[in-house]
Amino acid sequence: MTSARSGFASRLEAAVEQRQSQIVLGLDPDPARLWPQAVEAAAGDGAAAQAASAVEAHCCALIDAAGPASVAVKPQLACFERLGAPGRGALGAVVAHAKAAGLLVLADGKRGDIDVSAAAYAQSLVGQTTTPFGIVDGLGADAFTANPYMGIDTLSVLIDSARANDAGVFVLVRTSNPGAADFEDLELADGGTLWERVAETVDRLAGEGELSDVGAVVGATAPQHVARMRELMPRAIFLLPGIGAQGGKIEELAPAFAPGRAGGLVSASRSIVFAFEEQGGSPAASARAQAESLRDAAWALGAGG
Amino acid sequence: MTSARSGFASRLEAAVEQRQSQIVLGLDPDPARLWPQAVEAAAGDGAAAQAASAVEAHCCALIDAAGPASVAVKPQLACFERLGAPGRGALGAVVAHAKAAGLLVLADGKRGDIDVSAAAYAQSLVGQTTTPFGIVDGLGADAFTANPYMGIDTLSVLIDSARANDAGVFVLVRTSNPGAADFEDLELADGGTLWERVAETVDRLAGEGELSDVGAVVGATAPQHVARMRELMPRAIFLLPGIGAQGGKIEELAPAFAPGRAGGLVSASRSIVFAFEEQGGSPAASARAQAESLRDAAWALGAGG
Repeated sequence: MTSARSGFASRLEAAVEQRQSQIVLGLDPDPARLWPQAVEAAAGDGAAAQAASAVEAHCCALIDAAGPASVAVKPQLACFERLGAPGRGALGAVVAHAKAAGLLVLADGKRGDIDVSAAAYAQSLVGQTTTPFGIVDGLGADAFTANPYMGIDTLSVLIDSARANDAGVFVLVRTSNPGAADFEDLELADGGTLWERVAETVDRLAGEGELSDVGAVVGATAPQHVARMRELMPRAIFLLPGIGAQGGKIEELAPAFAPGRAGGLVSASRSIVFAFEEQGGSPAASARAQAESLRDAAWALGAGG
Repeated sequence: MTSARSGFASRLEAAVEQRQSQIVLGLDPDPARLWPQAVEAAAGDGAAAQAASAVEAHCCALIDAAGPASVAVKPQLACFERLGAPGRGALGAVVAHAKAAGLLVLADGKRGDIDVSAAAYAQSLVGQTTTPFGIVDGLGADAFTANPYMGIDTLSVLIDSARANDAGVFVLVRTSNPGAADFEDLELADGGTLWERVAETVDRLAGEGELSDVGAVVGATAPQHVARMRELMPRAIFLLPGIGAQGGKIEELAPAFAPGRAGGLVSASRSIVFAFEEQGGSPAASARAQAESLRDAAWALGAGG
């Protein structure tokens, strides 16, 4: 596919500069914990359709509130998939709403599979599918997350397909959960850990340019690793989940921003959407204030830190 | 959730015995390569709806043809996801068709994520979701594939959620693609390879019983590893992709069946669905013959091999 869009990394850099934000707004809607206004607005026939419409209203309201302080949204695909076909409809509507608000979309599904299946995931998330009945557009995300376990051939298909659509890929390197210690941190016989080997691979797969369209998911809960990750992947955009609810602190992430402000994207979800439960006030006003506060904290770290 | 169903491993054992088959029919529909009758049967408004209806017709015809020689189907989720909400509708219809034909359903999505997201994937594939509007049922699969990279806490949530729904999980251990050599085969500092460490973990997570509800995806293209895998995971059900199009040979898989015939499930997709292109005849008749031939070859290996 040819496109008038610039590549993912340049598009992100421009958006970070324009919006003065490195915040990624996580969209992980739990139908049992939606903002009250969204539950009241639900419509449709049957539980799945009603839940999907409430999820859509919730995410759109969250985007309206916290989107202006953000540069991108990160929908967690599992949260939409559990609502079946109506959930996929809601996901499409939320992505469209985010794009209309000028936000980039990072689809968080942590996909990985053999060649033909990897190509199908890329079609689904950032590309399109040729059928005897015409072209079927995918989700239209700007980038997606990928799991490296199955090896470089699986990553290469995802990356090549993403590039053909001016999209990016964020490869899981060292994640924010306690279980990251089980396999990612294993020491290898010829030196280094598994995650360091994956990081070297991410760097090898990077394209041209100061910032690469192959990024890395780097848990913000292990800040002692961030400097080492930057050393191994000087040009990767770091997607940094784990701030807030998972315990990560934004002040410890400075090395992420060494290649420039767009070098580190700070992802937060629960700490923004549920801010009103701790701070009082309306869900929207609290989410907006929390997102602005995170945005300012990250921006204050500057570039070249 | 309580259920009158027995656990996944017992359900599978009974089905293997009753159907005298260890064959898993892979459903990886490519809208550009469907059986002609399915393309002609397409209906609906717009390319996505028409493609999804053709995909559904194709998969149902394939199930009618090759299902009787199989014990389960394995839909590749990526192939349905790329058709958006209509694709999810088609997936649901195909799963229902397979279950009505007495087949088990192994959802192949290779999921893996942190706790809350892993729980959402389990809800989506084998469970249900509580919403203010009522319960939303998931796909209703009998088992699904999972990626271990992010660690034991992520696997445990998937396994616990699956068990609560009498479902099983197949963890990627050593896959069938060339890239399996990149990370899965890495030698660890304290001995063994990464995939062997994952295999030990799969064995530790196994429940009670001679066959466990925690299985392993074990590429049939590396038969030299199958005996070692059986040693490390004596009670795991092996899901063995890679036969046929990917070059694996069924005769080399005997150690998989050591704990009984249900200990090894032989997955094939392209070699069955496209058999007519090599052998002539109708797509359905060729698929049926190819599935029967695979079934007989696997069954002849017996149990305790």
